Amino acid sequence: MSAAHPSDTVYSSGTLQASSTVQSLARGLDVIRSFDAEHPSMTLTEVAGRTGLSRATARRFLLTLAELGYVRFDGKYFELTSRVLQLGYSYLSSHTLPQIIEPALEQLSGELNESCSASVLDDDDIVYIARVHTRRIMRIGISVGTRLPAFATSMGRVLLAYLPVSERDAAISQLKADPLTPATITTPEALARELDAVREQGFCVVNQELEVGLQSVAVPVFGPEGDAVCALNLSMSVVPGTTSAPRLETIVPALKATADRIGADLRAKK
Amino acid sequence: MSAAHPSDTVYSSGTLQASSTVQSLARGLDVIRSFDAEHPSMTLTEVAGRTGLSRATARRFLLTLAELGYVRFDGKYFELTSRVLQLGYSYLSSHTLPQIIEPALEQLSGELNESCSASVLDDDDIVYIARVHTRRIMRIGISVGTRLPAFATSMGRVLLAYLPVSERDAAISQLKADPLTPATITTPEALARELDAVREQGFCVVNQELEVGLQSVAVPVFGPEGDAVCALNLSMSVVPGTTSAPRLETIVPALKATADRIGADLRAKK
Repeated sequence: MSAAHPSDTVYSSGTLQASSTVQSLARGLDVIRSFDAEHPSMTLTEVAGRTGLSRATARRFLLTLAELGYVRFDGKYFELTSRVLQLGYSYLSSHTLPQIIEPALEQLSGELNESCSASVLDDDDIVYIARVHTRRIMRIGISVGTRLPAFATSMGRVLLAYLPVSERDAAISQLKADPLTPATITTPEALARELDAVREQGFCVVNQELEVGLQSVAVPVFGPEGDAVCALNLSMSVVPGTTSAPRLETIVPALKATADRIGADLRAKK
Repeated sequence: MSAAHPSDTVYSSGTLQASSTVQSLARGLDVIRSFDAEHPSMTLTEVAGRTGLSRATARRFLLTLAELGYVRFDGKYFELTSRVLQLGYSYLSSHTLPQIIEPALEQLSGELNESCSASVLDDDDIVYIARVHTRRIMRIGISVGTRLPAFATSMGRVLLAYLPVSERDAAISQLKADPLTPATITTPEALARELDAVREQGFCVVNQELEVGLQSVAVPVFGPEGDAVCALNLSMSVVPGTTSAPRLETIVPALKATADRIGADLRAKK
C-alpha cells in the first residue's frame, strides 16, 4: 500500500544533487496537479498561489513543462496538454487489474443498469481505476484518477475493513474527518463499528455520507494473496431526505459474482 | 497544438539551476513513461536500459518517485502506483472537451453498437481522450491516453487534413513511416492524396492500415474558432483479407450528427 522509503541508500552520497532532484520532480508534479476542473487554465500568479511556489519558481516549472510539451502557454494563460494523459496511461497499461476489471464492470453495469466503479487505496484516499456509467445517473464528476476520502465511501470502507489489523487500526485512530453531508460519520469509534460490520456482512452500503442524494454499495475483490486488491461499487441516486434502501438482494449477489470472477482472473494470470 | 517555447525569458538568469530543473523533471517523467504493458514491473537495470539513464541516475529518480508515492519498490522490482493516475486526471478534469465528449460517445456507441473513440493531435501522434467500447469488438489495448501514429489512423488523418495548410504540408513532408500492415500507406504523396480526399468528403475511412482486421471511420469536431479540435471515430472488426466496406450510409451521418452536437456544446460553453 505505502511507497518504499529507501532514502538512506539513495541519499548516502551526493545529498545536494539528490535533494534538488527530489525537489524538482516533486514541484513539477505538483504544478501538473494544480490544474483541475475549477482551474483549467491559470496565470503564473494563480499557479504560484495554488502550489505555494514563488512566482519565479513557478515560472521555471511551467516553462519547463511547456518545453517538454505537457503545458501550453498562450502568453497569459497556462493549461495542460493531452500529453499529460500519457503519464496516467503508463499506470493503466502496466497493470493487469484495470484491464481485467473494465469488461467485468461493463457487463455488471449492463445487467443492473447502474454506474459501476473500481478503486484502490492510496493512503487515506481511494483512487478510481475504472468506471462505467449509465446515462441516467447524475454525473458527479468522477473519472479514472479521481480521489475521494476512503472513510466516507463504500469502496474505501471495504478496502479499510480488509486491511491487516495494524494498518486498519492506524487508519481508524488517525481519522480526522470533516462531515461531508449531515449523514457523514466522523469519529474513530463510528468508523470502527462500520468496518466491523463490513467484515461481518462482506459488503458496505454508504447512504448519502459522501454526497446528498447518492447511495452506493461496495464489495472487495480478493487477489491471489488473499488481500483485498481493490473494491467494486455500484452507485445510485436517491431522493434527498428519504431513506429508501437500495435493492440489496439483487445488487450484492451481482457485485459479489463480478468480484469473484475478477479474483479468479487475477489468480489465473498470476 | 505545439507547446510554447519561451525559453529565452526563463533562461535569461540562473541557467545552471534552470537546466537542472528541466533535466530532473524530464528524466523523472521519462522514468514514469518507461513502464507499460510489456514492462509493468522492472528492476533498476531494466529501467536504466529503457530510459537510457545510468544505473545511478535511474536509481535516484526511481527512489525519488517512490518517496513521492508514484512508484512502489519491493526490494527488487519497481512498479507504478495508482497515484500516477492523478496526473492524467488533472488533464481530464481541467478540460471541458473530454467531459462533453464522453456522454455523446456513449449515446453514439449505443445507437450503432460499435466502439467509439475521440482523440486529439500531439505532434505526430493522436492521443485518445475518450473511448466507449462494446463487448463484441476485439479488444485492441486502447484506453484514454493511448498514442498511435496519426498518419495511419482515421482520426489522425482527419486531424491532419484540417490543420492550417502550412502545418499540414509540414506533417506530410516529414512523413517517415514504416508500414504497420501490408495496406499502410507510407509515402508523402499517398498521404497528401488521402488528406485531400478527407477534406473533400468530410470523413476518413482507414481499412486495415493500422492493424489487420480493423477498419475505422472518423469525422472532425469543429470548435468555436472553426478548427478541428478533435476527431471522433467508430472502429469495426473485419475479416482479414476481405475488403467489405463498412456501412458508411449509416455510420457517417451518425458520426457527423454527434460531432455537430459536440461542436454546438463547445460553442455554448465558450
